[in-house]
Amino acid sequence: MPHITKKYDFIAEFFDIDSMGVMWHGNYVRYMEVARCRFLDEVGFSYLKMKEAGFALPIVKLDCKYIAPIEFNKRFCIEVELLEFECFFRLGYRFVDMNGAKLCEAHTSQVAILLESKETCLYLPSEFRESLSAFINHANK
Amino acid sequence: MPHITKKYDFIAEFFDIDSMGVMWHGNYVRYMEVARCRFLDEVGFSYLKMKEAGFALPIVKLDCKYIAPIEFNKRFCIEVELLEFECFFRLGYRFVDMNGAKLCEAHTSQVAILLESKETCLYLPSEFRESLSAFINHANK
Amino acid sequence: MPHITKKYDFIAEFFDIDSMGVMWHGNYVRYMEVARCRFLDEVGFSYLKMKEAGFALPIVKLDCKYIAPIEFNKRFCIEVELLEFECFFRLGYRFVDMNGAKLCEAHTSQVAILLESKETCLYLPSEFRESLSAFINHANK
Amino acid sequence: MPHITKKYDFIAEFFDIDSMGVMWHGNYVRYMEVARCRFLDEVGFSYLKMKEAGFALPIVKLDCKYIAPIEFNKRFCIEVELLEFECFFRLGYRFVDMNGAKLCEAHTSQVAILLESKETCLYLPSEFRESLSAFINHANK
Repeated sequence: MPHITKKYDFIAEFFDIDSMGVMWHGNYVRYMEVARCRFLDEVGFSYLKMKEAGFALPIVKLDCKYIAPIEFNKRFCIEVELLEFECFFRLGYRFVDMNGAKLCEAHTSQVAILLESKETCLYLPSEFRESLSAFINHANK
Repeated sequence: MPHITKKYDFIAEFFDIDSMGVMWHGNYVRYMEVARCRFLDEVGFSYLKMKEAGFALPIVKLDCKYIAPIEFNKRFCIEVELLEFECFFRLGYRFVDMNGAKLCEAHTSQVAILLESKETCLYLPSEFRESLSAFINHANK
Repeated sequence: MPHITKKYDFIAEFFDIDSMGVMWHGNYVRYMEVARCRFLDEVGFSYLKMKEAGFALPIVKLDCKYIAPIEFNKRFCIEVELLEFECFFRLGYRFVDMNGAKLCEAHTSQVAILLESKETCLYLPSEFRESLSAFINHANK
Repeated sequence: MPHITKKYDFIAEFFDIDSMGVMWHGNYVRYMEVARCRFLDEVGFSYLKMKEAGFALPIVKLDCKYIAPIEFNKRFCIEVELLEFECFFRLGYRFVDMNGAKLCEAHTSQVAILLESKETCLYLPSEFRESLSAFINHANK
């Protein structure tokens, strides 16, 4: 599969920081969702468009490896990499600081479910897969 | 209006605590919601029952006065007081520690909206008001 | 007091939205904090600078009036207005949509506490007040 | 290693539920933390005791597999299983509904860091390991 990576910038907010002075581990999941939604916006297939197309994309798997802490007001970047989009929509997330040092590595897997029947799709809807292919092709031109 | 107050116990969790070592001010709103839902469960009119009855009860006003900080793992109690239930469903919340010292004072106002038409009701649905009256009468017997 | 207002843009994220399809009322408090921190960054007196100067600025009062709901992926703007900075650091927040319609109106009051003694200051530290005055003067020139 | 499992009961709150009507995947992490803290309280080695003993226990790895959704007001139970406590403090979490059906399976790994030097310990502090051993022995007697 041709490679595609997109980067999104963030700042660690006050409410993200726990009593140890670093971002609480559960809050990374929120930033991953923001990065994922921005990525899907770029693809042209936001959650709203999915809804119109009759499906949703729930998370079925999540893993995070925390490498170095993120402190209040620190800028960081999430590099989103598209890893798979046949049965699962699978993304990799690489949190890096402003010097490029890795802070966290994470992955999510999502499946498509039909909104009407609540059935899980064996394959991602073809309309979605085609948008992803077109996005990759365009980015790698 | 006859007076009614109910108490609910909580523990400040690790994820509630900010980098100053105290509960982040925005997290009080979550505990208020838990207390409010437990209160409505006791009334016999949970959000699920409201949905069945065709209405929802969105928050239209909120105020909090933070008096003393809440630290990690500290037990506290929220005393919920029913203040009004004609046009608005209005509750008072008194956060107190295990010695009865006041930690926070807050209020919420909710209105009923019809789920189908999205219209705001001038009065709370009569079925809901009757349940609240019965609950007060029963508690004050 | 000379008037000063600053505007910050946001998008309602998926995790902000509740089961009624609108931003959960407690999540507004997070956006208010982001807007407040950006405002203080512009003033040149972030929470980090306060820490260096030996004080913190805890929230002692909060009120919100919810006027119209905010849906997923909707852009909105928070207009932050400096209302007071003598004993209390008091800000007003006006959430507006892209057409300028008001969505929410809120206020926070903060006091300074000395980090070492934990004492509450009767007046905000003079260094902070001077930065705010300079910021206003510069903005209104 | 002798087996030990503890169960903790929860209710899915309104603020946990996303616009799809199910618990937002990131919110599971909060419930895992509550279960973990209750477990450590039972062991007699809460985060507060760790602080006194001069160490903290940050999360270095997290994984979740979401099996069936959790709806508003649904009761569920988290079974916490101690999997490892030599170099890593490793727990398994099994979310089950009231009929025993599995909803989610998750794991966390934590390492000890010394609060003063910020060094990561190769082994968990012996005081902590001894408390865990005593807890297991007592539970399996």
